[in-house]
Amino acid sequence: MPPEIMSGAILEPDHLRHALDVREKLESRLDHLLDASSAIPENLSAAMEHALFAPGKRLRPLLVYLIAEPDLAQENAALDLGCAVEMVHTASLVLDDLPCMDDARMRRDRPTTHIAFGQATAILSAIALLSRAFGIIAELDIPAAKRTRLATILSTAVGHKGLAAGQEIDLNGRSTLSGTAEVENLNWLKTGMLFEASAEMGAVLRGLRPERMREVRIFARHLGLAFQTADDLLDVFGDAEGAGKDVNKDAGKPTIVTLHGAGHAHMTCRQHVEAAERALRASGVSPAPIEALIAKYLKLETRFDGQ
Amino acid sequence: MPPEIMSGAILEPDHLRHALDVREKLESRLDHLLDASSAIPENLSAAMEHALFAPGKRLRPLLVYLIAEPDLAQENAALDLGCAVEMVHTASLVLDDLPCMDDARMRRDRPTTHIAFGQATAILSAIALLSRAFGIIAELDIPAAKRTRLATILSTAVGHKGLAAGQEIDLNGRSTLSGTAEVENLNWLKTGMLFEASAEMGAVLRGLRPERMREVRIFARHLGLAFQTADDLLDVFGDAEGAGKDVNKDAGKPTIVTLHGAGHAHMTCRQHVEAAERALRASGVSPAPIEALIAKYLKLETRFDGQ
Repeated sequence: MPPEIMSGAILEPDHLRHALDVREKLESRLDHLLDASSAIPENLSAAMEHALFAPGKRLRPLLVYLIAEPDLAQENAALDLGCAVEMVHTASLVLDDLPCMDDARMRRDRPTTHIAFGQATAILSAIALLSRAFGIIAELDIPAAKRTRLATILSTAVGHKGLAAGQEIDLNGRSTLSGTAEVENLNWLKTGMLFEASAEMGAVLRGLRPERMREVRIFARHLGLAFQTADDLLDVFGDAEGAGKDVNKDAGKPTIVTLHGAGHAHMTCRQHVEAAERALRASGVSPAPIEALIAKYLKLETRFDGQ
Repeated sequence: MPPEIMSGAILEPDHLRHALDVREKLESRLDHLLDASSAIPENLSAAMEHALFAPGKRLRPLLVYLIAEPDLAQENAALDLGCAVEMVHTASLVLDDLPCMDDARMRRDRPTTHIAFGQATAILSAIALLSRAFGIIAELDIPAAKRTRLATILSTAVGHKGLAAGQEIDLNGRSTLSGTAEVENLNWLKTGMLFEASAEMGAVLRGLRPERMREVRIFARHLGLAFQTADDLLDVFGDAEGAGKDVNKDAGKPTIVTLHGAGHAHMTCRQHVEAAERALRASGVSPAPIEALIAKYLKLETRFDGQ
């Protein structure tokens, strides 16, 4: 039985149920927002659906929604904003998996998009998902000033100071990373930044005050680092079937696991979760559904025991 | 001496000078907006600059600006909006040139971005340019409602009903195109739609009335088709040195040239220019600088004589 990474959280079925209900609503909105029509080349449309509707945890859109805690009037905006973030995340996975990047063949229990549709269509589907995300944000039924603020946050998280930068360092700059701080910075760019952007966007939608917004950001940053560290552990100790994707892709690259061993990585992950929980509770957002999600997904398949 | 495609326009030096002055301002804003900083991996930053600062006509941002005809208060917004469009156009060229798409080695008189920086960095630079474009629009110093309208226009032009759709059909669906209408639809997706979006965005910035906006769209659509047809002619009859990029990439694909011959393509191009001019004059936008640009750039290297 795998040990829980979570420290104090008790997995309460009602809270988890709420989070999973939101996920069902998200799935249904995603389908609606993909905006399928005869104007879209069939192959492109199928590639976008292949990537987007593969089974995923939908953590980022859930963060958006559970931090926004929308009333009825804002519920659609919270769902659509979450879907926009999921489209961006999916686009980044499609590109990361390309032969010229991580050269992965499986993702979310399916053949990667370029394996199923060819590289060109995979790249075009990523561009289309990314563009659609910005289009969805531009059309949210909320004041225009909030929409532009959300677009700024997303643009920064994706671009040359965010995901794109992280992937570039991961591919061409990893060998130059020397210490924990540099590896954590890379993890932040690759994972933490979109987690942080998701949480921040939820908080903007909610209209959270600046000092509480700060706590939300701290929460999300630690959560992102916890997930990335867990992912690094999974890459070493997981199997492809359990992970739903290729593993052992990081062999030879410095990660928290390869630098300091699995025991240290496990402890780092736990510390990030604890710091995330503290900040979440200080932010004024209802913590229970989010903690239930973390408890569900931050279990590690641990075949190590502190070495 | 190459014949002019332009029908009635007289190339007036003052108007052309104005357009070229705007282009200089655009180049300088592009550099500013790329927002270089030590936070960006050097390789990624260099790839973005390689693609963006290669010599280009900058037609799309010039359209934005010359249709907006900004006063002093709106000048920076018009320039920045133009730069955002140029970033999107550049991103699309970087991707179109990839080995899995057109497999081009030269573009804008330089090695293509993937030849100079590798495929992964080329793709990431395209993503970064695209994201930055939406970020720039979100931060324009104009009312937020206009910014969101501009983002919607750009998102539609880039995505699964725009550029991405056009490239997908070009790569995987060309052989199924049978007639002129289908080829023109492809040309519209690949070129006309971003021309139309550029012109429409300039008109939104200017606050043009709907009936005149309609003329602007018609103008831009015909102009885009004229440029695409000229490009098809260049692909057959140009040489790589004059074109600044690979030619003969369309061999075996149906284009207006391969379907109906060069004489017909030349006539089609001229008809589109004439229709564009008529709509431009009906739109209330000062036509002269735009016509001067068309006259400068829609000269064809013609080695055919009406066959």
